[in-house]
Amino acid sequence: MSATDLPQRLQEANANDQFRRRWSPRSMTAAPLAQSDLEQLFEAARWSPSCFNSQPWRFVYAHRDTPVWETMLANLMDVNRAWAKNAGALIAVISRSTYSHNDADAPMHAFDTGSAWMSLALQAQHQGLVTHAMRGFMLADMEAALAVRAPYSIQAMIAVGHQGAAEQLSEPLREREQPSPRLSIAEIAFAGRMPEE
Amino acid sequence: MSATDLPQRLQEANANDQFRRRWSPRSMTAAPLAQSDLEQLFEAARWSPSCFNSQPWRFVYAHRDTPVWETMLANLMDVNRAWAKNAGALIAVISRSTYSHNDADAPMHAFDTGSAWMSLALQAQHQGLVTHAMRGFMLADMEAALAVRAPYSIQAMIAVGHQGAAEQLSEPLREREQPSPRLSIAEIAFAGRMPEE
Repeated sequence: MSATDLPQRLQEANANDQFRRRWSPRSMTAAPLAQSDLEQLFEAARWSPSCFNSQPWRFVYAHRDTPVWETMLANLMDVNRAWAKNAGALIAVISRSTYSHNDADAPMHAFDTGSAWMSLALQAQHQGLVTHAMRGFMLADMEAALAVRAPYSIQAMIAVGHQGAAEQLSEPLREREQPSPRLSIAEIAFAGRMPEE
Repeated sequence: MSATDLPQRLQEANANDQFRRRWSPRSMTAAPLAQSDLEQLFEAARWSPSCFNSQPWRFVYAHRDTPVWETMLANLMDVNRAWAKNAGALIAVISRSTYSHNDADAPMHAFDTGSAWMSLALQAQHQGLVTHAMRGFMLADMEAALAVRAPYSIQAMIAVGHQGAAEQLSEPLREREQPSPRLSIAEIAFAGRMPEE
């Protein structure tokens, strides 16, 4: 595997290739997933680090063609429903905003739950699956439908499935169906202090 | 590598072992890191997903035994300085709370920056390094010292280095120097709706 096989994602330093190869396709094949597929994702996610090991992440999932699947799809914005309907499952990534041991505010909860989401996404790639996180959904309606109540809240909805052909998508999504570029290391990492903007 | 070689971390489903093997040691050897070691970490982190590909994560780092290293150490809480002084580098993980393209609030910024931190931590493990995230530091003083200004804020301080022997630590840290357990999959993942608490 060469460093130039993703021309919009050139390596600047030598890192494990799982990071550069992961991206967020929208085209999926509508193939179902096994329950064990999802459990492997949650297995990876649960080993993530968190403040006081409080593990604020929770997941509510629906396999395709189940009643809750239809509810989840109905609460996505149209632009996401158009392609997410071909996922194998939808997963609400939920975070607890207080520590379970004392109910005090947990200022790192979203950050910690984001780390669990990254583990889930990388594990999906190891299983030959693709993931795509969405914020475009009716937050209050989705939380009500899934019985997500304070101190919990949905951070993102994840579509997971088998990757499909870009040609299945309509424009403008078809044109965007490729790995996105990133800022260079020099633009995000600084010795000693933040630069002036 | 067997499923029982970390007795407090038994597998419940088959996932890539990088997740279960990663933990957050405190004992480090005080060996320095190369600049290329840090660049490999940032390379992994920059490929993380984010809302609108806004890439809110930034990193300000200091190699050990440099002026900024001393400043960073001085702004850690005592309980963290006691062991973090043997890291090879300290990294402030910083997040931008607004989108760079329109300055609107970015509600997923901490979640997205958490995903970048997870990539960094896993990449460190691939390099034979260990990482430990801290929230125990003087936030306002650390931000002032590193020129971190709104809309940026420090989410966590990361110690990265070469793992040392548990025996180097004083109690009670010595006793805690082992991988921590986690909730089971059944306690964090739910079909269709959140359970009653």
